Amino acid sequence: MAPITNGRLIFKEIPTGYPIPGQTTAYDTSSHIDLETEPLNGSILVKTLVLSVDPYLRGKMRAPERESYTPPFFVNEVLYNYGVGKVIRSETSAFRAGDYVYGILDFAEYFIPKDITKLEVIAKEPTLPYSVYVGAAGMPGQTSYYGWKEYAKAKAGEVIFVTTAAGPVGSIVVQLAKQDGLKVIASAGTDEKVKFCKEIGADVAFNYKTTNTADVLAKEGPIDIYWDNVGGPTLETAIANTALRARIIICGYISQYNGEEDYGIKSMKNVLSNRLSINGLLVFDHQDRYKDEFYKVIPKKLASGEFIYTEDITRGLEKGGEAILEVQKGVNTAKKIIVVADD
Amino acid sequence: MAPITNGRLIFKEIPTGYPIPGQTTAYDTSSHIDLETEPLNGSILVKTLVLSVDPYLRGKMRAPERESYTPPFFVNEVLYNYGVGKVIRSETSAFRAGDYVYGILDFAEYFIPKDITKLEVIAKEPTLPYSVYVGAAGMPGQTSYYGWKEYAKAKAGEVIFVTTAAGPVGSIVVQLAKQDGLKVIASAGTDEKVKFCKEIGADVAFNYKTTNTADVLAKEGPIDIYWDNVGGPTLETAIANTALRARIIICGYISQYNGEEDYGIKSMKNVLSNRLSINGLLVFDHQDRYKDEFYKVIPKKLASGEFIYTEDITRGLEKGGEAILEVQKGVNTAKKIIVVADD
Repeated sequence: MAPITNGRLIFKEIPTGYPIPGQTTAYDTSSHIDLETEPLNGSILVKTLVLSVDPYLRGKMRAPERESYTPPFFVNEVLYNYGVGKVIRSETSAFRAGDYVYGILDFAEYFIPKDITKLEVIAKEPTLPYSVYVGAAGMPGQTSYYGWKEYAKAKAGEVIFVTTAAGPVGSIVVQLAKQDGLKVIASAGTDEKVKFCKEIGADVAFNYKTTNTADVLAKEGPIDIYWDNVGGPTLETAIANTALRARIIICGYISQYNGEEDYGIKSMKNVLSNRLSINGLLVFDHQDRYKDEFYKVIPKKLASGEFIYTEDITRGLEKGGEAILEVQKGVNTAKKIIVVADD
Repeated sequence: MAPITNGRLIFKEIPTGYPIPGQTTAYDTSSHIDLETEPLNGSILVKTLVLSVDPYLRGKMRAPERESYTPPFFVNEVLYNYGVGKVIRSETSAFRAGDYVYGILDFAEYFIPKDITKLEVIAKEPTLPYSVYVGAAGMPGQTSYYGWKEYAKAKAGEVIFVTTAAGPVGSIVVQLAKQDGLKVIASAGTDEKVKFCKEIGADVAFNYKTTNTADVLAKEGPIDIYWDNVGGPTLETAIANTALRARIIICGYISQYNGEEDYGIKSMKNVLSNRLSINGLLVFDHQDRYKDEFYKVIPKKLASGEFIYTEDITRGLEKGGEAILEVQKGVNTAKKIIVVADD
């Protein structure tokens, strides 16, 4: 069999603001691969099916000497993130041809992982598509589940405010909170997303671009839990509207990922007045404790329809740069997936 | 016996900035009391010996409709705070004449408490003066002890940064941290206070008015624990210099008590990057759990000299307004005590 083109998305340049397709990232067709003869050296050959596009990827597009919670991308190297692929060939007993694997995949149509320990075979719920395993049943859903278990200390009747509540992290938080009997205030950036927040059970849902967050929290709060995916002025407002002994879970700060000036939070006095507890949440810190439980609980709820998910699909890796930008700008309509190839 | 003058310190006016003696507070000699015949109505007559002057008193000098963690003072009423007094007469079996009591006392030479449950008889270490029971062995020392037990999660070899480290709260934190094997960075606002920080074991001590905090933390950090008594830019700098999984204990914000504009903390991204844990500490929340243990442990350490304390004494209630202002400005040299009368 002759070599075929192996399309890949390359990190080209460290952005100062938003990541621009064709400048920050570029689709590359210069690489070729012979699926039958390409040497595997004890690894596997993976055909990429779906890739996840997450807000945190912007944090990897930085000068590599700057430290952060996630390693940097390197210029002229292939991007990577959570995805699902199918094993085409295997030279290890850990995987067989035909297996579906979840883990860190290259933004490439085909790839041979250097480190196969970052992949695992999926035991899929029959009625769930693979794409869900990079969203509600993957890293974003795990983020929600671990953070909820570790830091929410939720009691029925309490009030939670969730930002980016239509996203894959926020929407699972909303549904975990409803399951535990809380009143949920949800915010999102489009009316379509707000509609989805209501569908998944939010008691109050609003478009933060057209409705003032402080007004909503003054009316519907004070809040006992704040799930922060945005940072900036919204975090300041949430802290200002906390109840006594409220818990704040800092999970992201999309408002400050794209070169915006650091916003100064002026409501920190409330940390003492209300004896707040604020915790930074990174999903990887809590895997050992909650991962098995997560896979036992959440995929079944999604398969049965007890928990609802939604996706916004970009077809074709050549549009990957646009998908990444959409998520940074919040113009995606739901959890962003790149479908690289059909099964 | 004829009635005698009962000097009192009155709250006269809600301040916008610093509390000015003669304006915010005023010494009043219009009240008289007959120590032998004044009706007690089942209460006790207390002769005030020492009163504590604490930073948090400024928070009580606010418009009463503004909520906070401590009830407000009311205009034209007598100030009150922690103190030690001697029971002169008693009409309750809970106290006997001659008992020394600790608790909330009026800023008055003599007073008859409306609520005797706010007072308790002191079981004093023989070598300790009563004044220590409103400082290192009182509410400030309890604040340090409870916060340390509840939130520090200290491990030997870690680095802690303590602000207002020569004060009654900070100095006990410094000594608890040294006892647990930590490296202690201490800041204070005068060279005399810095000298005291070194005497109690701080590894690094500096005058934040003449030395840049960020430079010190960059050199001596990153910090695993930050004990915050000041808020504002110092809190921002501390957050920016944290190690992974650092703990921040928010115990006060003296930099913002006196009408200063709310300062915006720009380093909150680090809460996620370093997975920080931030907790607001109020001493009263933790009494049930740690108070008995505190009184078993700390007074003995102070009496034996294992823990060191220092005091800055104002003699005479008529100078109480000045003592309060000194603490807000930080020009006191140590834990501020008003000695109202000798035993």
